Amino acid sequence: MSIQVAFTPAEIATIVGAERTNGSTSTPVRDIASLTTARAGDLSFLGNDKYKAQVADCAATVLLLPINHVGEPKPDQVFVYVQNPSAALAKICARIEHALWPKPSPGIHPSAVVSPTAKIDSSVHVGPLCVIEDEVQIGAGSVLQASVFLGKGATIGDGCWIMPGCIVGAACSLANRVRLQPGVVIGSDGFGYEFVQGRHEKIPQIGTVAIGDDVEIGANSTLDRARFSKTTVGEGTKIDNLVQVAHNVVIGKHCILCSQVGIAGSTTLEDYVILGGQAGIGGHITLGKGSKVGGQTGVAYTLEAKSYVNGTPAIPYMLERRLQILHQRLPDLFKRVDILEKKME
Amino acid sequence: MSIQVAFTPAEIATIVGAERTNGSTSTPVRDIASLTTARAGDLSFLGNDKYKAQVADCAATVLLLPINHVGEPKPDQVFVYVQNPSAALAKICARIEHALWPKPSPGIHPSAVVSPTAKIDSSVHVGPLCVIEDEVQIGAGSVLQASVFLGKGATIGDGCWIMPGCIVGAACSLANRVRLQPGVVIGSDGFGYEFVQGRHEKIPQIGTVAIGDDVEIGANSTLDRARFSKTTVGEGTKIDNLVQVAHNVVIGKHCILCSQVGIAGSTTLEDYVILGGQAGIGGHITLGKGSKVGGQTGVAYTLEAKSYVNGTPAIPYMLERRLQILHQRLPDLFKRVDILEKKME
Amino acid sequence: MSIQVAFTPAEIATIVGAERTNGSTSTPVRDIASLTTARAGDLSFLGNDKYKAQVADCAATVLLLPINHVGEPKPDQVFVYVQNPSAALAKICARIEHALWPKPSPGIHPSAVVSPTAKIDSSVHVGPLCVIEDEVQIGAGSVLQASVFLGKGATIGDGCWIMPGCIVGAACSLANRVRLQPGVVIGSDGFGYEFVQGRHEKIPQIGTVAIGDDVEIGANSTLDRARFSKTTVGEGTKIDNLVQVAHNVVIGKHCILCSQVGIAGSTTLEDYVILGGQAGIGGHITLGKGSKVGGQTGVAYTLEAKSYVNGTPAIPYMLERRLQILHQRLPDLFKRVDILEKKME
Repeated sequence: MSIQVAFTPAEIATIVGAERTNGSTSTPVRDIASLTTARAGDLSFLGNDKYKAQVADCAATVLLLPINHVGEPKPDQVFVYVQNPSAALAKICARIEHALWPKPSPGIHPSAVVSPTAKIDSSVHVGPLCVIEDEVQIGAGSVLQASVFLGKGATIGDGCWIMPGCIVGAACSLANRVRLQPGVVIGSDGFGYEFVQGRHEKIPQIGTVAIGDDVEIGANSTLDRARFSKTTVGEGTKIDNLVQVAHNVVIGKHCILCSQVGIAGSTTLEDYVILGGQAGIGGHITLGKGSKVGGQTGVAYTLEAKSYVNGTPAIPYMLERRLQILHQRLPDLFKRVDILEKKME
Repeated sequence: MSIQVAFTPAEIATIVGAERTNGSTSTPVRDIASLTTARAGDLSFLGNDKYKAQVADCAATVLLLPINHVGEPKPDQVFVYVQNPSAALAKICARIEHALWPKPSPGIHPSAVVSPTAKIDSSVHVGPLCVIEDEVQIGAGSVLQASVFLGKGATIGDGCWIMPGCIVGAACSLANRVRLQPGVVIGSDGFGYEFVQGRHEKIPQIGTVAIGDDVEIGANSTLDRARFSKTTVGEGTKIDNLVQVAHNVVIGKHCILCSQVGIAGSTTLEDYVILGGQAGIGGHITLGKGSKVGGQTGVAYTLEAKSYVNGTPAIPYMLERRLQILHQRLPDLFKRVDILEKKME
Repeated sequence: MSIQVAFTPAEIATIVGAERTNGSTSTPVRDIASLTTARAGDLSFLGNDKYKAQVADCAATVLLLPINHVGEPKPDQVFVYVQNPSAALAKICARIEHALWPKPSPGIHPSAVVSPTAKIDSSVHVGPLCVIEDEVQIGAGSVLQASVFLGKGATIGDGCWIMPGCIVGAACSLANRVRLQPGVVIGSDGFGYEFVQGRHEKIPQIGTVAIGDDVEIGANSTLDRARFSKTTVGEGTKIDNLVQVAHNVVIGKHCILCSQVGIAGSTTLEDYVILGGQAGIGGHITLGKGSKVGGQTGVAYTLEAKSYVNGTPAIPYMLERRLQILHQRLPDLFKRVDILEKKME
């Protein structure tokens, strides 16, 4: 995609708060590309030191570089020096984002189906074909893009952004600046049954889900309502796509849950926990503050703070690596034992 | 959430069919909480004997306890004795559920798009923005909450509850009292291709999906239609969120499929099979009656009835545990062989 | 389901381009069934040689058989000989598919919400309750079934089929004949954050997603837009349900991604890669042309062309099988070392 927005190098230097610049060009920047694919008219950046050799051959018009970078720009090229090129690029991207997709204006689309008992701030954007049930509340500046469902009594704070096709069930709440990617389901029933006379009888799930400030949740992820009380996600936690959070799970602040993670019922994640993709966390356990779980790992027991585990069943990361190496040396070990046995005959 | 419903202890005792009560209070019960978090005005319960020491310190106004529980209520506190506190709580929750979220009244919302050839019982609720195609049939008392899609010729039985955003494809059927959580897709095409001259040519998938009585399916789960004939889910089976059921799978009665399970094509699950979260089941195999598969397990071969397997590849649970322990003793084993070799030199 | 379409054996022979037929019947074919379940009035087929003994007992009215099949039809039964019975069945299924679910006629349903700046070919079908934002383009013969969302500037080629509830985000593109199963999300934000002063700050994701010709994507799968530039899926690639493709992933041509696969950011799959169900692929790596990854496998490193790997961590398939066998012989190995130690005492 062409970003259809043009910047001069001077504008870029201002946006990123550059330490200094080197070189000059009359070419405006119209797109962003990696060091190896950039062409004239592109902005590129050195986000990781291991790629620094690629700078010399990079054809980008403007490059964001760390302040200690050694080297000179080519003709018609500008080096812009910053503390953190990756963070600087994010600032440019934010500017482009606003130009590309400006925040929609306040108002309720005539095709939306909105209960007269809903309390919606006048600054809110309710897009086409949304359904807003009785007693819903939506705070200042929030955006519902299209085809969003808010169940009875759901509460949305200020500055939330809810993308198409999201479903927030009855009595669930989002705090402020929560961002839901498309297709998120919040407040589906917890998976709870009693086995009675050969049948699984449903245990009603009458709790809710409460999402804290600045949480982001990825596309088609599902968060179940509590059996009673609340399933909660703490402030600043980021959840990727297709993640499952079961009933009565309590997730702390500033956690990272990568794609396709599953967390079983009533488990607690303390603050700053990081879960790798496809990790599975058992029910009724606690993952201590700052603990880190590798991708595809299966955790069945409580972890202490700052644990770093891997494998199924999960064990300390370094031990797991070592056991993997020994596992791959099993053919050799079997041979060595064969030889020993022959010698002993 | 406050449940906004008040019960007296006497009302609670009646609802749960209490054996007896002990203590008295004038405080109404307005919420439910666990033993350790309950406060005055809450109902709590002893669902698992291992928590019985927590009862003495519990501040709940009413506690549901097993009939043999030893101990006395505090002032302004009532103990309600029952055979099964967890099942008793479920009865209270069911009562609250009906008060909180009463069944919507019959009728078709004017924003729904309904084919004139659809046959919809007069007691059915069709919520806003549903799409109902030609020749669909919907039985007595069923509820479509909002933005539900029923494809041409789909058949919905009596007393079903279909939550927002669900999609039931053409010619698929739900029997009676089926409950679909938000975002469920029933009747997507099976994943079938022939590899011809370097390209994957699509095999048309003209079968359907048939869901039995009292089945519940979790949010954003997907069940593919058969290549021909039917993908089926038997009576009383419960499926959690984000589960994948491929084409021509046959699932028996009263099975439990935990979150993020995947089942490949043409596999059969006999009755009462239990699959742990993130388990993966290969294609064209049979899991015998009552077999049990641990979380994250990968099953590639047919299992006999009452098998209990774990690990990838799946092996009997007790053997898998034992091998895990030996695996963790590999560093020691390598050392022991080193020593033996030195002695033999 | 009865397919409600009747064929004579002669019609079937014509559709499949039969080499020859044997036998006769006056019964029309109205359904399709496997060899063991077929009854009079059914079409069946021998798709895999290992089932050939089932042909003799098969009650189907018409059987599709390989040209070298030995055996005679029963009375009132017809054998139809073809090069590839499975491909022949696909031809019949395609014919039935068109009869069952004819392509909807061109036109925009009055309940759809369509921007006046969208450019929609007159042959396009836009079903009920779709939302089409500004500057969207849709090519000839494409179908949007119902409740489809196309964000600002999205581009849809010719002959695409987009099923209910799909979401294609702003500026994303589908080429020609792309098929999206229900609930697919294309263009959700990539999962990218900078950790700054104890908080995860969002990195704006301003790239897009570009889907090539003849790609099919399964129900509720999610494909994230790039941080900048494009996430791409090459021509002819087929993606199953509940698959996660992260930002800046580049998928080649004619790949197969089975259900619940997850691919982390900036990874490249070259052409003809096959990923088994629930496989997890790490970020910033390359899977060489034609490489094959087993189900539930975890790949953290770049793979050479034509690799075939299995397990977590992924290792060559044959080695992984061998190590699994040795792993299961660990109890014996420990015993053998015990014995050696006793002998050495």
